Amino acid sequence: MALVASWFGRRGPRRETPRLRARGARRAVTRVEFTDLHPDPESYLGRAARIQLGHVETLGSLVSDFDRFDDKERLSTAAGLALSKHQGLVAEIVRRDEDPAESMSAVAEPIDHFRRVTRGATPLETLLSFHVTSGLLDDLFIGLSASLPPDLGPRVGNLLGSDAGTAGVVDILEREISVDRRMGSFLAMWGRRLVGDTLLLAREVVDVTGSSGGESVEPVFTELIAAHTRRMDALGLTA
Amino acid sequence: MALVASWFGRRGPRRETPRLRARGARRAVTRVEFTDLHPDPESYLGRAARIQLGHVETLGSLVSDFDRFDDKERLSTAAGLALSKHQGLVAEIVRRDEDPAESMSAVAEPIDHFRRVTRGATPLETLLSFHVTSGLLDDLFIGLSASLPPDLGPRVGNLLGSDAGTAGVVDILEREISVDRRMGSFLAMWGRRLVGDTLLLAREVVDVTGSSGGESVEPVFTELIAAHTRRMDALGLTA
Repeated sequence: MALVASWFGRRGPRRETPRLRARGARRAVTRVEFTDLHPDPESYLGRAARIQLGHVETLGSLVSDFDRFDDKERLSTAAGLALSKHQGLVAEIVRRDEDPAESMSAVAEPIDHFRRVTRGATPLETLLSFHVTSGLLDDLFIGLSASLPPDLGPRVGNLLGSDAGTAGVVDILEREISVDRRMGSFLAMWGRRLVGDTLLLAREVVDVTGSSGGESVEPVFTELIAAHTRRMDALGLTA
Repeated sequence: MALVASWFGRRGPRRETPRLRARGARRAVTRVEFTDLHPDPESYLGRAARIQLGHVETLGSLVSDFDRFDDKERLSTAAGLALSKHQGLVAEIVRRDEDPAESMSAVAEPIDHFRRVTRGATPLETLLSFHVTSGLLDDLFIGLSASLPPDLGPRVGNLLGSDAGTAGVVDILEREISVDRRMGSFLAMWGRRLVGDTLLLAREVVDVTGSSGGESVEPVFTELIAAHTRRMDALGLTA
């Protein structure tokens, strides 16, 4: 946690009544809001932009790993949607007269590390990694957007909450898991590992060091995990 | 040439007066038209769609190979533009009540082979390969579109002639070549190898077997190579 300077104020988070919002064509996940945290906009935007660019990289490299034409199209569509989000976040950084490359470089180390440890040994593992980690991190950043300044937060929340191509990704995962049930239990185990790594990054993002001992963010993390569990359930995987 | 059945009528091609058209933000290339060839629309569309999807794969995998954020954005933007073209071609196949996966599978073998032999040993070689091969093949398919039925050809020609993100790709190539001049002579050699492989695919596409001995298509290929030479010149590379 010492890697990156604190970028949130140290007020305790407060969990709001979860709201349902559409995500992809098929699922509804809980929206978590932490209205008492005050993320620094530049750090928030730099991280969010770097993470979306990471999704572009992951999905872009997966396009050639899957043989079916429709899979290639699903994956590149999802990559294009992540690129749109990245570009929208970069535009917000520019609008604040800050340099996108600097904002992203400042936060690159923990995110690059995260990307390395969550890369799968097979394309299917990497695709599940995208689904699990982007689901958790999108929920986190959408939740945090409610605490950004009012001239920024709603726009960013809408941007991050827009279609991520999840339905197509879920189609591929469901089909592959149905082919080989043993694969399902293996992927379930991989999914648990991914949650651990993602929550480490999420905790670093929320930066509990020096706040009320971490206890106060527990409800927030409980909500993130509950939404994750519903995503895994939808795939027939044990979270 | 025996791999794939003939899909063009056997009339001789005729070279039209070259026209200039904008391509990317910086360059103008010659538009070649072969108005006396009559490509079979399904084969044409299947090939063109598969080739554009190949561009998505190549560019998508390159995104994580380049470290700079702006390069990642340039490459994923170009991938997104190739995806749009692919999707537009798939829509044309569907409009003809044909199955896109079948149309693309029927032509997959020579295109997959072509993609394997034109993949570079380094990201920079692969990027030059995208630039060189997509330039030649786009010119070929745009030229052939003039011979498609009038309810199809102009739409496809416009689609293939739209922005391909070339300016961003050229920016990366120019920068990398300027860093190391010896790299330039190596890439020039690689470029000559790429032209050979691309013209083999182009000849297969035009399918000279059984026509007037191939002689009649020479002016067409001369035009394709002239446009290629201008692209290489723009990079300071000897074609």
